[in-house]
Parts: sequence; structure tokens; C-alpha cells
Amino acid sequence: MAETPSAKRQKSSKDVSYELIYWPGLPGRGEHVRLLLEEAGAEYTDTAQIEDGVKSVLAQIDDKNLGDEHNPPPLAPPILKHGDLLISQTPNILLYLGPRLGLAPKISEDDDGIYIVNGLALTALDGLSNEAHDTHHPITTGLYYEDQKEESKLKAKDYIANRLPKFFGYFERVLKSRASGEGPWLYGGYLTYADLVLFQQCVDGLKFAFPNALKRIEGTGDYKGLFALYDAVKGRPKIKEYLASDRRQKYSQGIYRHYPELDEE
Amino acid sequence: MAETPSAKRQKSSKDVSYELIYWPGLPGRGEHVRLLLEEAGAEYTDTAQIEDGVKSVLAQIDDKNLGDEHNPPPLAPPILKHGDLLISQTPNILLYLGPRLGLAPKISEDDDGIYIVNGLALTALDGLSNEAHDTHHPITTGLYYEDQKEESKLKAKDYIANRLPKFFGYFERVLKSRASGEGPWLYGGYLTYADLVLFQQCVDGLKFAFPNALKRIEGTGDYKGLFALYDAVKGRPKIKEYLASDRRQKYSQGIYRHYPELDEE
Repeated sequence: MAETPSAKRQKSSKDVSYELIYWPGLPGRGEHVRLLLEEAGAEYTDTAQIEDGVKSVLAQIDDKNLGDEHNPPPLAPPILKHGDLLISQTPNILLYLGPRLGLAPKISEDDDGIYIVNGLALTALDGLSNEAHDTHHPITTGLYYEDQKEESKLKAKDYIANRLPKFFGYFERVLKSRASGEGPWLYGGYLTYADLVLFQQCVDGLKFAFPNALKRIEGTGDYKGLFALYDAVKGRPKIKEYLASDRRQKYSQGIYRHYPELDEE
Repeated sequence: MAETPSAKRQKSSKDVSYELIYWPGLPGRGEHVRLLLEEAGAEYTDTAQIEDGVKSVLAQIDDKNLGDEHNPPPLAPPILKHGDLLISQTPNILLYLGPRLGLAPKISEDDDGIYIVNGLALTALDGLSNEAHDTHHPITTGLYYEDQKEESKLKAKDYIANRLPKFFGYFERVLKSRASGEGPWLYGGYLTYADLVLFQQCVDGLKFAFPNALKRIEGTGDYKGLFALYDAVKGRPKIKEYLASDRRQKYSQGIYRHYPELDEE
């Protein structure tokens, strides 16, 4: 057994607002963080809503930034600041917020539920977000889409034909499992942040990127649970109000992009 | 504030061995789990070590599997079974094991360190493992490398020229940050599982896949901290014994593959 780490960081003050640091102008990975905060009605600030939001992000990811005594520098947004804690990586931020916002079981010695929720959220983020981005940038993020259009067509075709059914089928199976419990949710019969991730990644973003393909896929009737979950999240009063507000960023040149030539006809 | 989840899962028995369920024949993502268990000297079983290991993995990811009342079915290995808990997704398994094995701060109300370690591990897994895999499968995992060789050359060239320096430079900066503390480690002056991930993903796997490029990169002297961390992990007595044992799987047709035409000359 390795020795137990002795260095302890100080407890962060929890009497302050959450601060989301993310690019303005697209929903992106920051959107998952927003959905949790909005569903919970939490107070937060968002650099996407301020005039020099881009500058705030750049300051954090500047390659001269060495962080502080508690926090290493982040590599990329989204970044969450809460008191003296500064963390990055989407699933990590969700893990921090979920139990605090009542959207996941508390992390404790006698409840392992958080690892189930974290696992489901990671699966949704992994398979359907990173890969969706790769449909328009299969070769490199350093080149424009236009310079890798032919490779993108191949990648998108494979994504729609093979990857989407794999992930949709998987989550449909999770929704049918006993562990999902009653109601439309993935785990334990209650709304968790894994449901919010699935809403955004698996359905909403894809409906924007590949509208024709998603319409056909919904029409097959093979993924009724998944689309019911989508509707259930969309109908939550706070989410509904949020989606209609100007706090919701419009899809643009981010993870999900709508190029008609990459969609089905 | 959303209502607090009421469903609670039972506490898993912790008096049993860990069971790692992963493909035999390659280190892959299962390797991170092994490195934690080995460094901690924990008791575990590994399907890579048994005769019908492949069958054990397939049974878990069978698309008829609906899990049980506590656990939804997993999508893919690595999978960890511990008592009645069954979880998947590499960073999730590491999050579960890390604090238990003394390789991360305990998750508690007055210590946020786990979110720092989890964030660093996610960054290492994200940038250098998923992308490394894409260098030989940029278009689709559904085709052989030979069928996407030209695209692979473009992707590998970009990976070595742009992505490696970005991630290496980032971790070098983390190692220079005040939060890393004394000694060769990423965070808090002690060995955490983020160091083990970095060892495997960022250096060991890449040394196998792109030996020429890595030799040149080490020679620049720009990443002294990173290569010192690599050596420090490699020199840990239990890791050393493990790497020399037959419990360590050899590199093969996994994330890290050695195709000379994708390396530098």
C-alpha cells in the first residue's frame, strides 16, 4: 500500500458564486456546466456573457500561467472557479457540481452511486462529443474544415452508420436496465447530471448537426427511451426557461456544426 | 435547487479483491488500472491473465446485458468489479481506486485535492491517448489501418508536430507550478495516480509508438520535468517488479502501435 498523501489543500469557501470560464459564441463543452447550474437554479457568472470574455479565457490558458499554490494551470476551458478552487475538464467540473447541486448522489463511504453517474456521463461525453467533433476535423484541428472535407465525408458517414447506433443503442439499454429505476432517467429513478449530458450531447447537438439523420433515426422507434429522456429534460421548467433565454449560446463553429453535405439526404 | 436524490445504493463490501475486466494481449486502457493496483500492492484478478479472458469481457459488453439492480451495463472495458459494484470508464475507475489505494487525496468536505488529481488524469488521458489512437485510425475504427494509411500519415505528422509539444509543454508547466510541490510529481509533492497515467500515456506508450520522435523530443531538453517523472515512476520498486513480470502486457494492436512510416526518420 502506498503511503497516504499528507498534503491537504484548504477547504474552499462555498459561500460564493460559481464562475464559469468558457468561450463566448458557441455552446461547446461549457454547455454541460451551464445546464447543471441552470437546472439547479444556482448563482453563477459566465465569461460568455461579458464583453471581454475571450480575454478572460486566454488569461487562464496563457502558456506563462503557472497557477497558484493550490491549483495547477488549466490546459483548456471549460474552467470552473469556486472560491479558491480552480478546476478544468468537463467531466471533472460536473463531478464537482453534481452532488453539490442535487444532481448526483453525494460522494460518501456508504454510497457508490456517484461512480455510476460519473461513468454514464463519461460515456456520453466520450462517444458522442469528441467523435462528433472529429466528423468535421478528422485529420487535425489545426486545419480548416474545408481543407479536410473529403476525409470529413468519410468520417461523418461512418459516424452516422456505425457510431450513432452503437451509442444510442447502448443508452437505450441503460434506460431499460433495472438500475435506471422508474421514469425517464438513466439511473436510480431521478434526474442526474448524466441525463443532462445525454440531452445535450447525444440528442440536441446532433439534431443540429445532422437533422435528417436524426429524424430518420427517431422514426425507427428503436430509441424511444432516449427521445423520451430528451423531451423530459427539455420540458423541465428551469431548462425550458434557460433554453429560451439569451444565456443559451447558439450553435456555431464548435463541436456540433451543420454542414449539409455531411448529413444524410 | 433540484431535490436531492433519494435513492441510495447499498455500500459495497470492501473486503474483497478488485477484479479488472479487460482484453488480454495489449496494455490498452486497462494498463492504467493495473499500474495503480500494482503500485499499491493491492490484491486483484485480471481477465488478461486467464484462459477465457476474452469471453469474460464479451459477456459484460454483450448487447443483451441489462446489468443488475445496482449497476447499468457497461459499454466497453476496462471494467472494475469490487463487491457488488461494477463500474467502467478509465478515469472513473481511477477516481474510485485512487483515494482507496493512497494514490489521491480522500474525497471529503474539507479537501478538494481529488478534483485537481482527476483533472490532471483526464487531461493526460484525453490528449495523449485518444489522439494517439487516432493517428492510426483517423477515419474509423471500423476499417483496418491499411485502409486509412494515407490519412494516418497526415494525422501522425500533425500529432507529432503540434499535439505532442502542446501536451508535453503543458505538463512541463504543471510540474513547474507551485501546486506541484517538491519532488518529481504533478501535484502536492506526492505520487498520485495522475503521475502513473502520465508515465504510461504520455511517455511509455509514445516511446513505443514513435521512438525516433520521442528521442529527438527528449534531446531538446525542453521537457526535463516530464522525463524525470517518467524515470521516477519507472524506478518505484513495485512498478519495476511489475514491468518485468508477465502481468505486464506487451504493446500490440492497441492504442499505441509502432508503424515506422508514421514515426519521424
